[in-house]
Amino acid sequence: MVKVGIINATGYIGMELARLLYRHPLVQLASITGRSAVGQRLGELLPHLSDIDMVVQPELGNVDLVFSALPHKTSAEAVSAALERGIKVVDISADFRLKDAKDYERWYDFVHPVSQLLGEAVYGLVELNRSFIPSSRLVANPGCYPTGALLALAPVVKEGIVEPEIIVDAKSGVSGAGRTLSLGTHFSEANENVSAYALEGHRHLPEINQELGGLNPSLSLSVTFVPHLVPMSRGILTSCYARLKGGKEGVRELYREFYRGEPFIRVVDAPPQTKQTWGTNLCLIYPTIDTRTGRLIVISCIDNLVKGGAGQAVQSMNLMLGLPEETALDGAAIYP
Amino acid sequence: MVKVGIINATGYIGMELARLLYRHPLVQLASITGRSAVGQRLGELLPHLSDIDMVVQPELGNVDLVFSALPHKTSAEAVSAALERGIKVVDISADFRLKDAKDYERWYDFVHPVSQLLGEAVYGLVELNRSFIPSSRLVANPGCYPTGALLALAPVVKEGIVEPEIIVDAKSGVSGAGRTLSLGTHFSEANENVSAYALEGHRHLPEINQELGGLNPSLSLSVTFVPHLVPMSRGILTSCYARLKGGKEGVRELYREFYRGEPFIRVVDAPPQTKQTWGTNLCLIYPTIDTRTGRLIVISCIDNLVKGGAGQAVQSMNLMLGLPEETALDGAAIYP
Amino acid sequence: MVKVGIINATGYIGMELARLLYRHPLVQLASITGRSAVGQRLGELLPHLSDIDMVVQPELGNVDLVFSALPHKTSAEAVSAALERGIKVVDISADFRLKDAKDYERWYDFVHPVSQLLGEAVYGLVELNRSFIPSSRLVANPGCYPTGALLALAPVVKEGIVEPEIIVDAKSGVSGAGRTLSLGTHFSEANENVSAYALEGHRHLPEINQELGGLNPSLSLSVTFVPHLVPMSRGILTSCYARLKGGKEGVRELYREFYRGEPFIRVVDAPPQTKQTWGTNLCLIYPTIDTRTGRLIVISCIDNLVKGGAGQAVQSMNLMLGLPEETALDGAAIYP
Amino acid sequence: MVKVGIINATGYIGMELARLLYRHPLVQLASITGRSAVGQRLGELLPHLSDIDMVVQPELGNVDLVFSALPHKTSAEAVSAALERGIKVVDISADFRLKDAKDYERWYDFVHPVSQLLGEAVYGLVELNRSFIPSSRLVANPGCYPTGALLALAPVVKEGIVEPEIIVDAKSGVSGAGRTLSLGTHFSEANENVSAYALEGHRHLPEINQELGGLNPSLSLSVTFVPHLVPMSRGILTSCYARLKGGKEGVRELYREFYRGEPFIRVVDAPPQTKQTWGTNLCLIYPTIDTRTGRLIVISCIDNLVKGGAGQAVQSMNLMLGLPEETALDGAAIYP
Repeated sequence: MVKVGIINATGYIGMELARLLYRHPLVQLASITGRSAVGQRLGELLPHLSDIDMVVQPELGNVDLVFSALPHKTSAEAVSAALERGIKVVDISADFRLKDAKDYERWYDFVHPVSQLLGEAVYGLVELNRSFIPSSRLVANPGCYPTGALLALAPVVKEGIVEPEIIVDAKSGVSGAGRTLSLGTHFSEANENVSAYALEGHRHLPEINQELGGLNPSLSLSVTFVPHLVPMSRGILTSCYARLKGGKEGVRELYREFYRGEPFIRVVDAPPQTKQTWGTNLCLIYPTIDTRTGRLIVISCIDNLVKGGAGQAVQSMNLMLGLPEETALDGAAIYP
Repeated sequence: MVKVGIINATGYIGMELARLLYRHPLVQLASITGRSAVGQRLGELLPHLSDIDMVVQPELGNVDLVFSALPHKTSAEAVSAALERGIKVVDISADFRLKDAKDYERWYDFVHPVSQLLGEAVYGLVELNRSFIPSSRLVANPGCYPTGALLALAPVVKEGIVEPEIIVDAKSGVSGAGRTLSLGTHFSEANENVSAYALEGHRHLPEINQELGGLNPSLSLSVTFVPHLVPMSRGILTSCYARLKGGKEGVRELYREFYRGEPFIRVVDAPPQTKQTWGTNLCLIYPTIDTRTGRLIVISCIDNLVKGGAGQAVQSMNLMLGLPEETALDGAAIYP
Repeated sequence: MVKVGIINATGYIGMELARLLYRHPLVQLASITGRSAVGQRLGELLPHLSDIDMVVQPELGNVDLVFSALPHKTSAEAVSAALERGIKVVDISADFRLKDAKDYERWYDFVHPVSQLLGEAVYGLVELNRSFIPSSRLVANPGCYPTGALLALAPVVKEGIVEPEIIVDAKSGVSGAGRTLSLGTHFSEANENVSAYALEGHRHLPEINQELGGLNPSLSLSVTFVPHLVPMSRGILTSCYARLKGGKEGVRELYREFYRGEPFIRVVDAPPQTKQTWGTNLCLIYPTIDTRTGRLIVISCIDNLVKGGAGQAVQSMNLMLGLPEETALDGAAIYP
Repeated sequence: MVKVGIINATGYIGMELARLLYRHPLVQLASITGRSAVGQRLGELLPHLSDIDMVVQPELGNVDLVFSALPHKTSAEAVSAALERGIKVVDISADFRLKDAKDYERWYDFVHPVSQLLGEAVYGLVELNRSFIPSSRLVANPGCYPTGALLALAPVVKEGIVEPEIIVDAKSGVSGAGRTLSLGTHFSEANENVSAYALEGHRHLPEINQELGGLNPSLSLSVTFVPHLVPMSRGILTSCYARLKGGKEGVRELYREFYRGEPFIRVVDAPPQTKQTWGTNLCLIYPTIDTRTGRLIVISCIDNLVKGGAGQAVQSMNLMLGLPEETALDGAAIYP
């Protein structure tokens, strides 16, 4: 059994990692740390995990791989320290997703403390970067919105058949905002309410632009990305709008071909619903043509805390440890 | 007191009409009919309206104006009969919204029984058609989605400063689907779920195209409209995306000017939320420029059953009866 | 026009007071104060109230009556100061609900600073204390849970026909916990969740016991009260269980008689739902006998922020100012 | 691999059975039948189960054990037919839960067609009847409400230390009402709403009375059971109120002792929440004493579709097939 750890297990992605790793048959969750709860049993902090008999430690123990679920900036330092100890890392924060250190000043308001690691980090969207992950010691786990947007758009961008004008309109459940309290995520305010936010530019936009650009640098894409908050706990539905160059025939087949053999991608024949991915590592993708305008519409659905968070982090971990990619990530959605 | 009636008061818009008319100081709700509940007290059918001491009648009584909240096709016949009796009509159904009778065959699968009335009917989006309503005997109340989309787009379309490529991504509460039972609106299926639907073409699209075209026939707009279902009872948030011709300065001022003096439109300085319109006849509109791409984004919020339904129907009625437009439509949103 | 003010208008009951008072035809909302937002426009703080053109002031202006919506302990001092200025007060906090000053030490952990006023304060459950309110200068607005419980139980307690063993199981929407942030009211935690809380004793219990005891001191009631949090914004459904002395016939008639003429009480013939009171000052009460055990069951429903908060505060104000009791409190529930 | 089948897999418990059985390592889901969907792929009917490559069959194939998820009355006949073919049965319906055939006429309005089997059927609440299940060929899976109530009350009833007056106030998510459409489970009506129902007597009451009586016939219990609908998809929280005979010390220890070694029962030290059981076969139980009145309060939480449905059916199946009881039922709650 390989030993793994979680730095900061008490946020939503951290606790979801603990849930997934606890039932993983080939790794052992050996160490968890927290920022404020040192010495407490995990089950005291998170009653739904009381079967996991572990105490929150001040320092990371002996592990082969660790997930850092710290906030950005703080995470970079913890990741760097772990790497120096020879521990492989899947970083849940944004700290190693962007290649250009200046983007951290621009979008996250801090000077990156270990920018020399940015070049080495692999962006952990397994479906696009699978070949680089097994040999990597540092994987940057994608943001939840970029996961939904990139999987929806990658086939037509990679093939170069899409026009540069792209709209990404995403609808997210509230857990995407994390466990930190705020008025916008206070139940009585978020319930029975929908809002658009971050219209001045969301931090996930440079991530989307970087990865789409990397897939096909010649396209000069112009992406508008608007996230919306909807009154549910989990799930992201992403609606993408663009025009195709040339013929509109065979788009769905192109998507099927692009994702052939992918264990967690389903190109579906009817508009998907976020609930159909609840608790799973699946991404459902529905590409279609608006017959009246000829425009391409792609709808994707994920569980933001699994495929958009802890699940794909475990998917990367499996590859980094030489384990079967799907281990601990099977199972159908819990519906309704 | 002017006497008014409601044909089919037991759907969501019908019951909302009854609520608004009951507290209207200048009209008397004098007759309600239903399809299946003849002879029952309104309060038996709809306990929240038990203070309204009325019985559902088989035939419309003596009234000066009637709201028809019947389903499409059935409504056209009832409307025609009322007009023949000299009764003014606000039709809640889609039966008089489209000008081209063939659109009813194409989008609603029926041959319009009184197509000669289509030319006469006024599309009841008061903010765009106010001058035609006082003298009309037949007003077609707009659909909920078109209300949100048209109010968001009218200023730039009318001014002719928008490029023809327009995306309308709308998010609606479940009451928009009406009171008729279906699996998609069954609580356990709709709760904790978001979905896109009608991707092959929603019936509100021809209505949006017709009215935008009417505002500015020279633009040759190409609109993609995708509605989404979100887990709340009321509210529509509409996100519109387009490019502007020429300069991007002063868009918000243009909207403010366009809607100056409108009693129910608020051009706001921060992204609005549907909950801020809950129970009101307001439409909140937030136009902004995506600074990275130069694209126009307009967000609008309404209560789909009030401004998107019963409220604007009463607004039209007030004008048709020569009453102050805001009567019975005042009051702030009930929040949270 | 009588001038009234609100101390601390930015909590849920404060903002609901502002909404109700704004459309009150016989009083003028003349002054609002806040704890942290002095100098800001109300509409900046609470966009749904942006039609109310007022600025939050540091000190209460010249008013005839004021609502104090401060937290407990702080409110007592503000109330005392207002009374000294000759201003009538409806206190929303708990600070004048309990008659025994020691109860504040026991249940609220503070020594009451103006306990000499406790005897004078009238408990503002109008249906039980209507005769004392017009001449009072200090009304203690009841807690939300006591409102639902007392109205459900008053008839059988007053008549002395109930056995002393009483269970009160209440289910509340999340707004009852106020606008202060906490993990338990964080959307993702409260959504899709039900919990019981305060099993060691909720602060509304002494209030229930005091008022039931006052109705009939001879009964020596033994009340267990357990509140539950349910995933909705508004509404309290209270389920009460007790045994009746003697015959079980005619209970509903007894309730009808007890509440005859009450403008806001509806004794109903079918189990009520909280949604049927949404946005109204109504209390729906359904008393019934469990035929298999002979036990009395009483279900009551209120909107916790209206009848359980701002609405009954306005109801008391109307009486204190000699205005018709129902002014500004009419209108049917907004449903669905 | 033992072969098992599901009769009527398209209701909520049927689909949850399919989900659990699909990942069961020791049985093979070999046959599913439906009432209206014969010939369709399971994934067409239930997209979240599209990984299960099975077609709905008109007749049950060759299996060793079958779950009947048919409605009551219809199920009795299907169960009888299966038993005649030598197939073991876990019946999800109510048809074999009650021992007295007359109860079916009284509570379910039908004459039981195979009442001779009632004596043989084992009530499948494993924690109370474990010893009878391995040798049984017919297990009646308990109702969701009885599961929550019986597990909460069994220790004090079995020990004979509870007074006969018992109140059971249960709060259920909407999926408990099944997948059949109704106005009460229409999203816009059930959302933002709480209601009590079946106050004239719910069908789960005789089941609760029978099983509590069976645990301790001498107690002559008088149980009032009131179910409530709350706006969430899954979960039941049951609040039980009673008085204890004699001392109140050590109640929690008594519960701990009673359920020692039970794999799916957790006697907890803080009030539990339904969300802590989401997707699991766990029952969380919190017994406490209301110190002011000396009354016993017991709160229990389950996922109504797992421990209150498909999960405990699989738990019984495991025992009937000689497999480890917990197989396919492990895993922590999915939270939030």
